[in-house]
Amino acid sequence: MLKKSLLQISKFVAPEIIFGQGALSQVGESAARLGIKKAFLVSDQGILGVGWVDRALDFLKDVGIGAVVWSDVSTNPKDSEVARGTEYYLANQCDGIVAVGGGSPIDVAKAIAILVTNGGQIKDYEGVNKITCPLPPMVIVATTAGAGSEVSQFSMIVERERQAKMSIISKSLVPDIAIVDPVILQTKGPRLTAATGVDALSHAIEAYVSLAATPLTDVHALAAIHLISENLRESVACKANLEAKSAMAMASLQAGLAFSNAILGATHAMTHQIDGLLDLHHGETNGILLPYVMEFNMISNGEKFAKIARSMGVQTEGLGKWKAAEKGICAVRKLFQDIGIPEKLAQVGMKEEDIPKLSANALKDTCMVTNPRDCCAEQIEALYRRAL
Amino acid sequence: MLKKSLLQISKFVAPEIIFGQGALSQVGESAARLGIKKAFLVSDQGILGVGWVDRALDFLKDVGIGAVVWSDVSTNPKDSEVARGTEYYLANQCDGIVAVGGGSPIDVAKAIAILVTNGGQIKDYEGVNKITCPLPPMVIVATTAGAGSEVSQFSMIVERERQAKMSIISKSLVPDIAIVDPVILQTKGPRLTAATGVDALSHAIEAYVSLAATPLTDVHALAAIHLISENLRESVACKANLEAKSAMAMASLQAGLAFSNAILGATHAMTHQIDGLLDLHHGETNGILLPYVMEFNMISNGEKFAKIARSMGVQTEGLGKWKAAEKGICAVRKLFQDIGIPEKLAQVGMKEEDIPKLSANALKDTCMVTNPRDCCAEQIEALYRRAL
Repeated sequence: MLKKSLLQISKFVAPEIIFGQGALSQVGESAARLGIKKAFLVSDQGILGVGWVDRALDFLKDVGIGAVVWSDVSTNPKDSEVARGTEYYLANQCDGIVAVGGGSPIDVAKAIAILVTNGGQIKDYEGVNKITCPLPPMVIVATTAGAGSEVSQFSMIVERERQAKMSIISKSLVPDIAIVDPVILQTKGPRLTAATGVDALSHAIEAYVSLAATPLTDVHALAAIHLISENLRESVACKANLEAKSAMAMASLQAGLAFSNAILGATHAMTHQIDGLLDLHHGETNGILLPYVMEFNMISNGEKFAKIARSMGVQTEGLGKWKAAEKGICAVRKLFQDIGIPEKLAQVGMKEEDIPKLSANALKDTCMVTNPRDCCAEQIEALYRRAL
Repeated sequence: MLKKSLLQISKFVAPEIIFGQGALSQVGESAARLGIKKAFLVSDQGILGVGWVDRALDFLKDVGIGAVVWSDVSTNPKDSEVARGTEYYLANQCDGIVAVGGGSPIDVAKAIAILVTNGGQIKDYEGVNKITCPLPPMVIVATTAGAGSEVSQFSMIVERERQAKMSIISKSLVPDIAIVDPVILQTKGPRLTAATGVDALSHAIEAYVSLAATPLTDVHALAAIHLISENLRESVACKANLEAKSAMAMASLQAGLAFSNAILGATHAMTHQIDGLLDLHHGETNGILLPYVMEFNMISNGEKFAKIARSMGVQTEGLGKWKAAEKGICAVRKLFQDIGIPEKLAQVGMKEEDIPKLSANALKDTCMVTNPRDCCAEQIEALYRRAL
């Protein structure tokens, strides 16, 4: 696989990354460096409540940057929220974006960035490379270890009318500067820590086996899988464990670099449909589906699935690649059980009658293009049913 | 070490990367995307002679971009060449830089980029972060698998008066777009292939054990070490071996990402002084010094040196970290012997009497700051002597 992927033309894009304890303090200097004078600061109520936005505003103020705060952002953010945020940005004559949040505020910030310079509605930009005008400067502070949106080319927005999550993918969506400060993760509860960690693992595994994977994305994907298998349990167990938080922040960042450039697969294609319909936590839904999709995809590349097992800490010596691959999937299941991820979609409210529509839409999702195993509607329906 | 480095604030910068067979064809579209209308194309006589510059000019012409060619560049390029190139750029009213070359033309291209917008002489920018004005847009096509300058924050220029190589280090020197096309490597002879491959390995190993290493630089460094240990011999042996060339191009790129962000160590600090004095191939000199410096540095971090051994393909099971570390150094020596790198500095013209001056200057080199083992002038002198 290495040699095959080296023989094709591939592209790799990453923002400038500032990582480490106390990195939030760099937000002012970073925004100033990009020429921002009046920042549109996107966040959500949870982040606001624990004081991180006030800290960011102080750092911006220290370098003379004013800001207006926009925090009307829900889980699985909606097109209408993007439209309202865009109006607010323009009404306040902002000249750059600072996001302080997890995947949802960051994705909204990126979508607003598109509309303020490109106009129209966010659904006009669904798909790959639909953005034509340059975006305003963006500094992104990640507050969860999961979404990886702080480094990615993706913004995921729900179109309410269709009840579907749109993938907007463009190099323009890679922020100028991504700030990752593990200290911020200490204010997250165990359920969010678990769900976001599972999201990061889904990114790493789907990017690693993606048809668009390259040696550059592979090194980040495998490093992320290893860090998550070693640290997610301890990160869920204890808010104060800064070493585990730091490792998870690094894992999420590396999984983000991997999937931003290698794209994803069937797990995400299937989860996006449930996100649009039921508004659950994206990470938990990924966690339910991932082992089933891995079982289905495994035959596409035994060697890579065996390497996933090794990165999950499985002793694979003396095992053939297929046996090793199976053990890797068991290790993923065990990790998810240990941190309390639900095992079945029925537990989170999905119904048998939803399956045909969800399957038809999943097949059309952008992430399906890079899934390593060809699949048809019946196979996707069977996967949803097994996970039900 | 992982945990320690995760607890500090670190920065990571990379250009947009276009990698693969035929990637040279992207040079026109890349320059156009950056708004270049009249390119200053920096190369050298060797590259010109085998036709790659003409190919690049055709791709630029296809998208309506004019170009003037500057190829007055030597190995270990000099401050005077930078000054002449700058005059030529300004006289021709160019608005962006395209380099097609190995480390020397790329470093000259970057140095010219500094002077055309910042003014002054290149020695004014020696050291870290001395550049204040933004540089013109830069598209870099790497033609050797070694220097890594296409992705790095470095430009290395010899100040003739002092006979010393200056390190100019700044985020501004990371090009906008780096293009790596392994096909170009097929026009290089075995000696250059060997010397540049050794340079790449020196980057990877010195970055991996650097005091400024981070988990992000480590994954690239280890991947590069592994690729080089598996592919450099075959790349040296046969021009037509495109798989080996592709692997070496990827290794050089990843070693570049690693050292650009983690900086280097004593090997480079010591080699830079010889580059300034004797004008040898930088890669060969690195190759002579690296094993001796590894022996000296080993006690700083047994675990990392043992991991180098594993990445070099050494079976380390059952060995303690120190024994494994020693075997890794043997593996580096064996690789260099197999590809015909000289073993002693006397073979390439260095004399005993040069040692005191070289040692004193090496201690002041920017790369010494991140060497993992503290060292004094006597120790550097002893290292030069052992390698003599």
